[in-house]
Amino acid sequence: MFSSDDNMQAGVVFPQGFRAAGVSAGIKKSGKKDVALIVSDRPAAVAAVFTQNRMAAAPVVVAREAVADGRARVVIVNSGVANACTGAAGVNDARDTAAYAAARLGCRPDEVVVASTGVIGKRLPMDILRAGIDAAAAALSATDGSTAAEAIMTTDTCMKAGTAETGLGGKSVRFGIIAKGSGMIQPDMATMLCFITTDAAIAPALLQEALRDVTGTTFNMISVDGDMSTNDMVAVLANGAAGNAEIREKNADYHRLRDTLHTLCAEMARRIAADGEGATKFLTIKVGGARDFAAAKQVAMSVAKSPLVKTAFFGEDPNWGRVAAAVGYAGVPLDPERVSIAFGGITVYRGGVSTGSDEGALRRIMQEREITLTIDLGDGDAAATVWTCDLSYDYVKINGEYRT
Amino acid sequence: MFSSDDNMQAGVVFPQGFRAAGVSAGIKKSGKKDVALIVSDRPAAVAAVFTQNRMAAAPVVVAREAVADGRARVVIVNSGVANACTGAAGVNDARDTAAYAAARLGCRPDEVVVASTGVIGKRLPMDILRAGIDAAAAALSATDGSTAAEAIMTTDTCMKAGTAETGLGGKSVRFGIIAKGSGMIQPDMATMLCFITTDAAIAPALLQEALRDVTGTTFNMISVDGDMSTNDMVAVLANGAAGNAEIREKNADYHRLRDTLHTLCAEMARRIAADGEGATKFLTIKVGGARDFAAAKQVAMSVAKSPLVKTAFFGEDPNWGRVAAAVGYAGVPLDPERVSIAFGGITVYRGGVSTGSDEGALRRIMQEREITLTIDLGDGDAAATVWTCDLSYDYVKINGEYRT
Repeated sequence: MFSSDDNMQAGVVFPQGFRAAGVSAGIKKSGKKDVALIVSDRPAAVAAVFTQNRMAAAPVVVAREAVADGRARVVIVNSGVANACTGAAGVNDARDTAAYAAARLGCRPDEVVVASTGVIGKRLPMDILRAGIDAAAAALSATDGSTAAEAIMTTDTCMKAGTAETGLGGKSVRFGIIAKGSGMIQPDMATMLCFITTDAAIAPALLQEALRDVTGTTFNMISVDGDMSTNDMVAVLANGAAGNAEIREKNADYHRLRDTLHTLCAEMARRIAADGEGATKFLTIKVGGARDFAAAKQVAMSVAKSPLVKTAFFGEDPNWGRVAAAVGYAGVPLDPERVSIAFGGITVYRGGVSTGSDEGALRRIMQEREITLTIDLGDGDAAATVWTCDLSYDYVKINGEYRT
Repeated sequence: MFSSDDNMQAGVVFPQGFRAAGVSAGIKKSGKKDVALIVSDRPAAVAAVFTQNRMAAAPVVVAREAVADGRARVVIVNSGVANACTGAAGVNDARDTAAYAAARLGCRPDEVVVASTGVIGKRLPMDILRAGIDAAAAALSATDGSTAAEAIMTTDTCMKAGTAETGLGGKSVRFGIIAKGSGMIQPDMATMLCFITTDAAIAPALLQEALRDVTGTTFNMISVDGDMSTNDMVAVLANGAAGNAEIREKNADYHRLRDTLHTLCAEMARRIAADGEGATKFLTIKVGGARDFAAAKQVAMSVAKSPLVKTAFFGEDPNWGRVAAAVGYAGVPLDPERVSIAFGGITVYRGGVSTGSDEGALRRIMQEREITLTIDLGDGDAAATVWTCDLSYDYVKINGEYRT
């Protein structure tokens, strides 16, 4: 179902009735693309989830208002400047951005979802941004969504896009997705930037419910550095161009749509964790045998966020004691004697002690690019999976030098 | 009152009636000192606080039992092996250690406080440790506590010791302190290893209350990497050799003793943060204007633990946006418009926006070795101070290679 390579070029314009473009407006000093536009040719149902950061950026404030009525047509994103910690003036800039894009594209300002990513504390260069919106509007394409995917990137080393297709009510329905994220990654109820398009017809309230469900087990389950951004946002536009009967209840079509969203979002979440700043390892932390999902997630996040665990993986050192310590301080009641820890397929800790596993085999697992850590708490049936990456010299380099 | 340089050599033997020694037993491959002994010549009141990690190490389990009756005479510490995640066999090893030291020094096993620090998951080499206890017992000194301070170190780059003297009930009373800690530092209710001696006479319950009070605003207010150890322990022995009337109520003497403990512990806490693994900067995070102490601490810890903040300080980049983001995701309700943030003496964020402060002056502050970050939440009168350090290449190097 998930087809990321073949249709990556199409991305968010894979569904019918969508066009997109990304251009270099000059907000980034590097000259890389920094303004993206996604446009539906008709009003679409919209749903979105946002950062829980109390210092939420201006575009988050304005986008929250725009999606409140469940309808939207346009997504305008800039990278390079986050428009965060910019006060009332920043909120005005975000409103002006929406108004300008609306006028340029012939819709109402409240049909425009604005998003930003980049340096915190700087005002948007509005003249440059307006010129960028003009250029992007002129470049809108119904076949190439890759320039938009590129324009939302910051420290990402690779573009993150994908598409999917499924049948709903006898109609073939398409989905497109683009995402960015590499540092300041510790989403909660929302995440980095991710935009999803679909030509499915679905009632906005159900779309919102499906999105919230899906982010809970995808974007909210990744951590690069434990830093929750001021600008996180995931938005989905469903324009109904596929002609399926509008989904108005939780029937089989609803579940199929939600499952498709889940597949797309899980893949993007994994790619964001794998592309974590400076990452050399992609780590999957599976916690099972937990009392409930929250406990499993808490333990998995505790391990995923531990700098000592992350540097051990960077050093390819099977130092499971650090994993045990992070399990122990997660704040979840547990009996050490019932806990087990495995690196790859090798159990290293069980019954309160080392299993004395083969060090050579362990070292070979540590040399892999993708490693799964499996932790069983022996305390129930609930499970959770978190995706993360290691902590390398390059993370320090990238973030010691990012702004300068 | 705090005299760290002049009496560092004496350390824990500065108070009357204490002897100490540290020796190289061979637990550490490096050949550095790894067994420390602190002995009171008479039974002493004892108080201690321990890690809250659910994977608490065997010595923590055994030491908890030993201090339960409020009396102790001996502290035996080894470095190199943490005796954590070693199950029932590890607990037996810790008990055997206490029994062996007790027999060697002529006291009861339950008068011995055992502590360990080092690699998790390995059994103690008991023969080597016993020989180390013999050697340390033979080397006990009433004038030099520095070998014991040295023997509890792991990745610490400098010895941490100090002394203090005060008057209690007309008698001159002395205190000595040694501590270790550099990585896996995120204490909660207890901390790393720290041992305090005093010749004051005080009832054990009051000593415990004073110690708990003091650790709440000292050791529990530091973070190097957010990783809470399995082996944290702070213990104080008060042997009454000074001849003051035993403190049995919260009188002026009690408060003077508690204040002295506070001075000693605060200094050790700051030194541990400053000696954080790979640290190039010592950071003091002061949060004021909070609703209560817990809220102030939560915000300060959120900033102190942020990898993005820590790498920015390493890069000497006055990237206050990352501080604002960490304040925002701390989980404390706040109004961004009422928050202010200052680097050194320069306010960078106020009223929801950048103050447009002088970038050159900010850069000069970032070049200092010790930097204070002041955050006001504008929401009350409570305050908290947390000490931490930056995140450097060397943290990654030290922890990517520690065990191998």
